[in-house]
Amino acid sequence: MNQVLSISAKALTRLAFMPFGDVIEVDQERAMTINDGQATRYHDLSRVDTGPDAGGYPLINIFRAEPCSPPLTITMMENHPLGSQAFMPLSSKPYLVVVAPASSQLDVTDIKAFMAAPTQGVNHHRGVWHHPLLALERNCDFLVVDRGGPGNNVIETTLDAGAVEVIVTI
Amino acid sequence: MNQVLSISAKALTRLAFMPFGDVIEVDQERAMTINDGQATRYHDLSRVDTGPDAGGYPLINIFRAEPCSPPLTITMMENHPLGSQAFMPLSSKPYLVVVAPASSQLDVTDIKAFMAAPTQGVNHHRGVWHHPLLALERNCDFLVVDRGGPGNNVIETTLDAGAVEVIVTI
Repeated sequence: MNQVLSISAKALTRLAFMPFGDVIEVDQERAMTINDGQATRYHDLSRVDTGPDAGGYPLINIFRAEPCSPPLTITMMENHPLGSQAFMPLSSKPYLVVVAPASSQLDVTDIKAFMAAPTQGVNHHRGVWHHPLLALERNCDFLVVDRGGPGNNVIETTLDAGAVEVIVTI
Repeated sequence: MNQVLSISAKALTRLAFMPFGDVIEVDQERAMTINDGQATRYHDLSRVDTGPDAGGYPLINIFRAEPCSPPLTITMMENHPLGSQAFMPLSSKPYLVVVAPASSQLDVTDIKAFMAAPTQGVNHHRGVWHHPLLALERNCDFLVVDRGGPGNNVIETTLDAGAVEVIVTI
């Protein structure tokens, strides 16, 4: 029988997500009144990292994700070695975030899972392992800000199902 | 009596907005299936321009805008000479976009107004004149991707109310 590693999704907070990236959400400490009082700017919540290579440039995309139904067996993770990748939900639904710290080889015991509120985006820092988008309930759209340019910017790793089964629960 | 210039907001389309920037919306011509069929990436809908100065870098922010009630008298416009500025609605509400082409001096007869759907973002190209955010009905949040870094990146111009009154209607 395989070893089973069960990971329970925790509420997403800026502090808990710090090893992996930034939470993009309204933050009163970053509030600036602009436009003669007609708007508030929550400033510099995250930065787009296009890597040290001068050929990288920031892209704006939309991702439309199919829903999943936890508990969820994690069979693969990926990272982007050349740039950050930010996701902001556009569909007013919570979603799951599954991550592990940047490293040359994924250690499954480092995997963490977070439940993000509809008002919370995440920006994965360059090289941070993450599962592809995990919408819940129904198809959901996300604004995605990441890197374009030359070079291989996707590294995937398959989890060895014979060694340990990683299950995320909510 | 002042001359009155009445501008009726038109539906936002990629073609009509081309002189001012990009419309950020799902576009089947830019669809790529990713993540083993679990998601669709609408790729490279717009790019973040941080200007020719190497000191610029892309920022992710949230703006929270107070609503306005058209008809609306336009008293000022602004532009960002050092970078683009993208707005993606997060509040599932339509909003107004008021723009004029990039130029050293705003010509009020060049002003155009668009009604953006809740699923449409805009990215104003560098130097394009625009009115600050115009939410409708209620307070609305927008994800904003623009430029940080040294230099003055805001130019404002006040419309001369004695010459011509510019009114936007929906």
